[in-house]
Amino acid sequence: MKKIAVLTSGGDSPAMNAAIRAVVRIGIENEVQVFGVHRGFNGLINGEIFEMDRHSVSDIIQRGGTILRTARSEEFRTPEGRQKALNVIKVLKIDGIIVIGGDGSFRGAKELSDLGIPTVGIPGTIDNDLPYTDYTVGFDTALNTAIDAINKIRDTSSSHERVSVIEVMGRNCGDLALFSGIAGGAEQVIVPEKKFTIEDICENIFKGKRNGKLHNIIILAEGVGGAQKLAKSIEEITGIETRATVLGYIQRGGSPSAFDRILASRMGSKAVKVLLEGKTARLIGIKANKIIDIDIKEALDLKSCFNEELYKLSVDLSN
Amino acid sequence: MKKIAVLTSGGDSPAMNAAIRAVVRIGIENEVQVFGVHRGFNGLINGEIFEMDRHSVSDIIQRGGTILRTARSEEFRTPEGRQKALNVIKVLKIDGIIVIGGDGSFRGAKELSDLGIPTVGIPGTIDNDLPYTDYTVGFDTALNTAIDAINKIRDTSSSHERVSVIEVMGRNCGDLALFSGIAGGAEQVIVPEKKFTIEDICENIFKGKRNGKLHNIIILAEGVGGAQKLAKSIEEITGIETRATVLGYIQRGGSPSAFDRILASRMGSKAVKVLLEGKTARLIGIKANKIIDIDIKEALDLKSCFNEELYKLSVDLSN
Amino acid sequence: MKKIAVLTSGGDSPAMNAAIRAVVRIGIENEVQVFGVHRGFNGLINGEIFEMDRHSVSDIIQRGGTILRTARSEEFRTPEGRQKALNVIKVLKIDGIIVIGGDGSFRGAKELSDLGIPTVGIPGTIDNDLPYTDYTVGFDTALNTAIDAINKIRDTSSSHERVSVIEVMGRNCGDLALFSGIAGGAEQVIVPEKKFTIEDICENIFKGKRNGKLHNIIILAEGVGGAQKLAKSIEEITGIETRATVLGYIQRGGSPSAFDRILASRMGSKAVKVLLEGKTARLIGIKANKIIDIDIKEALDLKSCFNEELYKLSVDLSN
Amino acid sequence: MKKIAVLTSGGDSPAMNAAIRAVVRIGIENEVQVFGVHRGFNGLINGEIFEMDRHSVSDIIQRGGTILRTARSEEFRTPEGRQKALNVIKVLKIDGIIVIGGDGSFRGAKELSDLGIPTVGIPGTIDNDLPYTDYTVGFDTALNTAIDAINKIRDTSSSHERVSVIEVMGRNCGDLALFSGIAGGAEQVIVPEKKFTIEDICENIFKGKRNGKLHNIIILAEGVGGAQKLAKSIEEITGIETRATVLGYIQRGGSPSAFDRILASRMGSKAVKVLLEGKTARLIGIKANKIIDIDIKEALDLKSCFNEELYKLSVDLSN
Repeated sequence: MKKIAVLTSGGDSPAMNAAIRAVVRIGIENEVQVFGVHRGFNGLINGEIFEMDRHSVSDIIQRGGTILRTARSEEFRTPEGRQKALNVIKVLKIDGIIVIGGDGSFRGAKELSDLGIPTVGIPGTIDNDLPYTDYTVGFDTALNTAIDAINKIRDTSSSHERVSVIEVMGRNCGDLALFSGIAGGAEQVIVPEKKFTIEDICENIFKGKRNGKLHNIIILAEGVGGAQKLAKSIEEITGIETRATVLGYIQRGGSPSAFDRILASRMGSKAVKVLLEGKTARLIGIKANKIIDIDIKEALDLKSCFNEELYKLSVDLSN
Repeated sequence: MKKIAVLTSGGDSPAMNAAIRAVVRIGIENEVQVFGVHRGFNGLINGEIFEMDRHSVSDIIQRGGTILRTARSEEFRTPEGRQKALNVIKVLKIDGIIVIGGDGSFRGAKELSDLGIPTVGIPGTIDNDLPYTDYTVGFDTALNTAIDAINKIRDTSSSHERVSVIEVMGRNCGDLALFSGIAGGAEQVIVPEKKFTIEDICENIFKGKRNGKLHNIIILAEGVGGAQKLAKSIEEITGIETRATVLGYIQRGGSPSAFDRILASRMGSKAVKVLLEGKTARLIGIKANKIIDIDIKEALDLKSCFNEELYKLSVDLSN
Repeated sequence: MKKIAVLTSGGDSPAMNAAIRAVVRIGIENEVQVFGVHRGFNGLINGEIFEMDRHSVSDIIQRGGTILRTARSEEFRTPEGRQKALNVIKVLKIDGIIVIGGDGSFRGAKELSDLGIPTVGIPGTIDNDLPYTDYTVGFDTALNTAIDAINKIRDTSSSHERVSVIEVMGRNCGDLALFSGIAGGAEQVIVPEKKFTIEDICENIFKGKRNGKLHNIIILAEGVGGAQKLAKSIEEITGIETRATVLGYIQRGGSPSAFDRILASRMGSKAVKVLLEGKTARLIGIKANKIIDIDIKEALDLKSCFNEELYKLSVDLSN
Repeated sequence: MKKIAVLTSGGDSPAMNAAIRAVVRIGIENEVQVFGVHRGFNGLINGEIFEMDRHSVSDIIQRGGTILRTARSEEFRTPEGRQKALNVIKVLKIDGIIVIGGDGSFRGAKELSDLGIPTVGIPGTIDNDLPYTDYTVGFDTALNTAIDAINKIRDTSSSHERVSVIEVMGRNCGDLALFSGIAGGAEQVIVPEKKFTIEDICENIFKGKRNGKLHNIIILAEGVGGAQKLAKSIEEITGIETRATVLGYIQRGGSPSAFDRILASRMGSKAVKVLLEGKTARLIGIKANKIIDIDIKEALDLKSCFNEELYKLSVDLSN
């Protein structure tokens, strides 16, 4: 293995840059040439590929976003698109590819592997929706962004003795809502994995009022959605002023947390080593505090397993 | 003047607590008893009034929100409500009242003054929409919250080469949008004081693309509104992916900036002194870097004057 | 078990409050009365003990420090002191005690257990110097404070093309230095677990200069110490301007990170349950991402094991 | 005026980059070529000068430090050094120079002006030690960094019921200490402009204890210095545990505050315009909330005027 390439694909997440930096520097340390690909799989198709040296990744560990830019590639989903990418890869004599992204990006990596190109994936998404790994790169930063926002909203919520509904990201996975609910000291957490009724929510709000709570903060996962509508219903039923905030894209950016930078650095390093060992179609993860690699298909077939213990803790602590 | 009371009213803003702290401590320093009123003018009506000492305002200078809580009082807008408040004030022998809030709260203060109770107002609002003062308490903090959010969104905006529309607060006054646009390095600022067309906006986006800009950040004042709709129009016309974020209530909270804490401390101190001088119906402000006091009616009659020079600077810098 | 008490002892750490909150709320959830003890073991001796309810721990999850205050108790190290504490505990009919602190505090907990009082310890220290647990409560926050400081110093270090020596906490354990070195993108990390010579350091600095690095950041663990002296030596040998900063007590405070708040909440909950199971002399920890409990003596006898893999990663990434 | 150059000199300060950006973009807007000079006056001497376009200053408004780097130039203090610089300027046909820096850098600008090169200075220093301007670029950011650090130290100070001495920057000017003392809610502020005795300090600490204060925070200006020694004296005299922290170089870096970014943008814009008006030896400042320009010599001859009113406020609020 003499030449490897790295790309970021799909939605970006904080510390993708730290992962790129580790891939480049550990690659070079292992006497491999490292190429960067612009705009995800589109860059493979269009040949937007350039060699990187140690200096190309200086002073990026603290930056949000991805210096390689990212995209969702429609073209790569077609056999023709993939063939074009394959041609480019062969012309440039690239021996292996590291894909930083989520679920969909990993399916792309699998396709490339099926075409004979060794690929390894690093989980870069704030959603933490990949069951094969305890944490994805960017989740911890998004979590800290969320609790910072919750802190700010709690100030104004307490001052006005309001109910506040705060919608955080997470389409199929309630982890960001659940973790930020516990860490933010929220009164309720509404996730796609758990049923809820507007009656339960309102009853809980009344209970909080009776217990002298000044504010009532409800964290809502994007996958459930409808923050504004929920706020309106709550206000109508309880008669208590209720306001909704959708945190939106601020959760995707920002200087990454220490945890994410270290996780991304360890995963980037591991990804290079797994490629060098001659493996393909592997995903890097962290399980039980150890960096692991696992077969892509096996990993993506894993059923998501909602953390019931944490959910119960969130309920017990918020009463 | 032996007893004064302080209340916060209307929408809260960061550093209201710093203002309360200054009123209490400077009052006591001047041998005046200081009372806190809960929930704005409602607390005057309901007698939710309690004496404060130096210790009651310990460790609040760094906290967002208001320890006195706040509300908009419908009852106080009626003659009956005001009469009730007056009765409570007389029973408690309160000689003067300091009202921390915005426009509407100051009209309440004026009514009290007309009923014979000396009143002074401190401008607490993140909107900076009071022409008699260069800065209101909370504006600088909200501005820093906005640019922090813009920074985060710029990360993901650059990674995806997207247009991002960011809506910040400010109903009648575009200051928060304008200042955060300049400080955040935004490409465009849309404020209620300036007309705009969707064609101008899109033309500007195309210009940015031609000049090699990776992102295009548009700051939209709440008073113009419609962030989601605007994003959709831009995407339709330009064909460039566009996302909207409405910052919402995070702009109201948070630990206040140094600027706001000092401004609030100086204004709180001045408010007490103005009351002690026997004045009434005065508002505290800052003009030309000096703390001033001005007649309420005169202040509220001032026409808002949009800062054309800053707006031009924002255009010149963003090209 | 009907009555339990909780205290914080030794140096404080961020998220101690989150642990206290969890102990109180999970205790009450399990129909146990929970008492707070002021100023660590001193409070046991002096009877500074008061009952806590759900409301006593409202709005503290986001606060640094400890609402119970903390101290190092000389008196408790004497048999007489411990006897006094025992008397107080018996008078108040307290059935079990949760001690939040580090190494020394756990020895105190062991003594109490030996006297027949069930005790459980929660690791609260920013040093991460307890080998039985992967993480201590407060470490992640201190790490984020350190990388924030490194970011700031890097700005001025690059502008001046200087060498910067930054001393972080950690007396016997280099974890904070090592982790913040990796996360901060430092050029060198100096920890008590690894020998170093001034010659190696300077050679590395010269290498960085040759490779075009604008700055050179060296993280020094408190346990090695001597930041000012080291900076002076480097400047004399290399002729490159060198400045030292000792981060000091800012690392101990601050609003805790999401990671620490969740860790503390889980550990606080577990501590109550371990007491309720009738165990004593146990420490709560996290191993392989699971909350565990372990015998105090066994835990404190574990040899510290330096993370050689991470150290190598820090070297490979920083070249 | 067809070609202007910009340089940063002396100690760096946050938002120097925002000033550079404004100079470049407003220069180009006015059809002037703008050159960047590396490493302050050294770059003028060595010809480290390069043309900048709009894109060279993209995405720097949020970055600390200075992309032009900075230095103190010994050589420029000699007539030979200045003659070399003059030769370079003439060869490159540069018509005017903007110097961003402090006191010493402005003296350099004056020398250049005396040699016939039009020069304008922008105040970039965190010390706020230039009496001709109400604020210098970087002061507000340093202030916010200081209060953030004070917040963190207060947490641990309260938990341990300690006295904390915090040394902030400011050699001849106590503004950073005074402003951060007020904004940080410190108990005492020690500045070079005001005499103090160790007895007064300790008496004040005892008074705080009597009044039930949990912590006692003393802000010390660098110009007074000796934080560690002072802490030791306090501990010896009062018997209360006392710890010192020297904030150091973290105050120089960091993403600039909104206030500083706007101030720097306005000053950068004004500097270009003043040059274009054909003026020389002028300094840009802000007085009474207006951007002004003033003769260098006149500005540097102004006597510093300590803000007695703010100092009194700090005393009255801290009791």
